[in-house]
Amino acid sequence: MTYYDKNALKLSHEYLKKHINNDDICVDATMGRGRDTLLLCNLAREVYAFDIQEEALSSTKRLLEENGITNAHLILDSHHNLKSYVKSAKCVVFNLGFLPGGDHSIFSHSDTSIKAIEAALDIIPPDGFVSICSYYGGDTGFEERDNLLAFLAGLDSKKYTVMLHSFYNRPNCPPLFIVIEKNH
Amino acid sequence: MTYYDKNALKLSHEYLKKHINNDDICVDATMGRGRDTLLLCNLAREVYAFDIQEEALSSTKRLLEENGITNAHLILDSHHNLKSYVKSAKCVVFNLGFLPGGDHSIFSHSDTSIKAIEAALDIIPPDGFVSICSYYGGDTGFEERDNLLAFLAGLDSKKYTVMLHSFYNRPNCPPLFIVIEKNH
Repeated sequence: MTYYDKNALKLSHEYLKKHINNDDICVDATMGRGRDTLLLCNLAREVYAFDIQEEALSSTKRLLEENGITNAHLILDSHHNLKSYVKSAKCVVFNLGFLPGGDHSIFSHSDTSIKAIEAALDIIPPDGFVSICSYYGGDTGFEERDNLLAFLAGLDSKKYTVMLHSFYNRPNCPPLFIVIEKNH
Repeated sequence: MTYYDKNALKLSHEYLKKHINNDDICVDATMGRGRDTLLLCNLAREVYAFDIQEEALSSTKRLLEENGITNAHLILDSHHNLKSYVKSAKCVVFNLGFLPGGDHSIFSHSDTSIKAIEAALDIIPPDGFVSICSYYGGDTGFEERDNLLAFLAGLDSKKYTVMLHSFYNRPNCPPLFIVIEKNH
């Protein structure tokens, strides 16, 4: 394991592969093009994936069908409503900020993101976790990151362990990989 | 691997165990009580350990003898002179800031620490690394940390990958674990 050929997304995938078992229920809170949904479906028993854009659901549905995946529930709703659909999950996975390679004017917003993370923390068991890749930069991306970091710094360390991984000398706002573990 | 029962020192030891082979030469730049020297001696072929305090050398010598260790060179000199003693090493290990559990008025100073890290980067090969646990806080510790972080952020990302691990929601200045890898 060296960090040279890694980035936040690759670190998150390594973490997911190490920590998810094939009898777990998992949540992809930010479906997007469905790549993390696909990974989670291959690792877990059942996956709930959320997006507010119809287009995300249709392209994810196609990707899953192409890969013979049948254990996903694709839900057209905001991730901050996830508790209406899932009562308990080993983990909840977020990609926050702009869509990598996509339209940088479409951002997630920290107020709903933070509500969704709070909901996620409610449904994970001890030893469960929330994984976050934070893409920032652009016009409004620093504000989201700073709000997110302030929220994370304030989480009770008796209940949660927040680990922040930062590619500290990379230029152009390198994404952060953050894990929130619920202490056992 | 969960982070709940970890800290910067434990993360650094996990990293060292994964990345050091028994034919490597390693450097402990901050000998202190010799615990990292002992770990490195058990992992590597040969270890060069530095401290400017006679007391560090005598207590480390005792610890190594108790453990039947014979592959260490204990050197009474500042770590920023390490190139006078070692021409090439797989890794150089630092514990910077106050001595954990020790006298918080004795700090390493960022000017000599940064010179020593620069010397360390000169003697490691591609795929070699520098490991740093940064203990900060107290009267002068934030200044050292901030100088160190500014230096790290400025390292050329084409030559080096700097990964910062931060226990982001822990109180009381939780130590940082930083790895600088020389890109291959």
